Amino acid sequence: MEYSQFIDAAYRMADASGELIRADGQKSFHVEKKGDGSPVTSVDQATEDRIREIITAAYPNHGIIGEEHDDVAPDSEFVWVLDPIDGTLPFLAGIPVFGTLIALLHNNTPVLGVIDMPMTGDRWIGCAGMPTVRNGDPVRTRACASLSDAMMSTSNPDFYDATNVSALEQMQERVNWTVYGGSCMAYAQLASGRIDVGMDVQFDVYDYMALVPVIQGAGGVITDWKGNALDLQSGDRFVAAGDQRVHEQALEILSVTAV
Amino acid sequence: MEYSQFIDAAYRMADASGELIRADGQKSFHVEKKGDGSPVTSVDQATEDRIREIITAAYPNHGIIGEEHDDVAPDSEFVWVLDPIDGTLPFLAGIPVFGTLIALLHNNTPVLGVIDMPMTGDRWIGCAGMPTVRNGDPVRTRACASLSDAMMSTSNPDFYDATNVSALEQMQERVNWTVYGGSCMAYAQLASGRIDVGMDVQFDVYDYMALVPVIQGAGGVITDWKGNALDLQSGDRFVAAGDQRVHEQALEILSVTAV
Repeated sequence: MEYSQFIDAAYRMADASGELIRADGQKSFHVEKKGDGSPVTSVDQATEDRIREIITAAYPNHGIIGEEHDDVAPDSEFVWVLDPIDGTLPFLAGIPVFGTLIALLHNNTPVLGVIDMPMTGDRWIGCAGMPTVRNGDPVRTRACASLSDAMMSTSNPDFYDATNVSALEQMQERVNWTVYGGSCMAYAQLASGRIDVGMDVQFDVYDYMALVPVIQGAGGVITDWKGNALDLQSGDRFVAAGDQRVHEQALEILSVTAV
Repeated sequence: MEYSQFIDAAYRMADASGELIRADGQKSFHVEKKGDGSPVTSVDQATEDRIREIITAAYPNHGIIGEEHDDVAPDSEFVWVLDPIDGTLPFLAGIPVFGTLIALLHNNTPVLGVIDMPMTGDRWIGCAGMPTVRNGDPVRTRACASLSDAMMSTSNPDFYDATNVSALEQMQERVNWTVYGGSCMAYAQLASGRIDVGMDVQFDVYDYMALVPVIQGAGGVITDWKGNALDLQSGDRFVAAGDQRVHEQALEILSVTAV
């Protein structure tokens, strides 16, 4: 299967999303707290609506799973997984690490991923069988032999609870640096060789599916905390690394905590 | 004293700094750990060198305090306080929240501040007697009557130690949202009415002097944890708020912890 045939449509989705986010990002907008306490804005919803329109017009037989609306045919051969604004809290605060995540799964395997950063104009695209590109240029993860040399990223320390905060603390003790709050930008920069290991908890499928082809196509590894490949049945914890050796060292710590 | 006479030179410093950072930001560069364990790169040093050249040429009688080199005449009537890259860790990781901070103090009072964000092209300038501007347009903090409605920002939770972590926890319990890792961008966005309260610890004068005129000129308040104005003798903790009421509520919590 030639998955590159879907790249053009994914570009159009990201273009439309970025336009809406940039247009509304400086204005005041309506904010609500969702059931889980996380924020959602009218911009999230309008952006996901627009992406869904593009999918439905181009691929009426594909399924859609998005953060802001109900699933459409989630058992289809092809399923798009969408987060219109990953990093809604930074978006509300005007911190330019939020982005649009678009993934395409074929038979429950992520084969295409877009990380689009509307405030910096950067776009990463990963597609099975092709090298990951940032703004058209191929990117690669960097070599890192040991966690002790690693730059680690995690989004929000408050997401960690009693079941996994010790895993975070153990990782922090082992790595060289820890950077917080990078949101999806951090995983894009892992693909570009600026960050060595990234981990998060309390993430849903639309928060991480797009990261998989981007990181794999740049030479990196991304799995759950037991080392399993990520699919629609995965749990809420994952770990990504640019170098297989660091991924293995991280799993030694995280797999003990994995549920 | 008409402090706006210094704005043109401050612009030239920020222009030069942004050019150097953008040119080198995508390349690999030399990184060292400083004595306090924080990172410093060859880009920090080259950028501060360039800003110091501009100051020395334009104002040979002014003092200079910068993060990367020794103080020059720090008891002068006018002193420039520089952080070439505030947020070196995000800079290393490619997270676009780092920026250049340039402050001018007159008789130990900050009267001019620049927050320049080289990756998004945003520049905030505050100058005593004038409204703060972002890219030339005036900005204002937003009204927020209560901490319970507030969006809070703090840079790095690891900076908090046994003497002040309880203050962070109490603040987190009171506010509506907490966003991490925003670096100087968070204080700029506080001036623009996107964030209501910001606090940090283990910051030095070059990390916060530029924030003072930017926040005050937008209608906000910034002091140490006891409510004192910030000058070159201030300690390493400060708190900023867009609304005086939130600042007072924060001080009730923080002043107990203040040393």
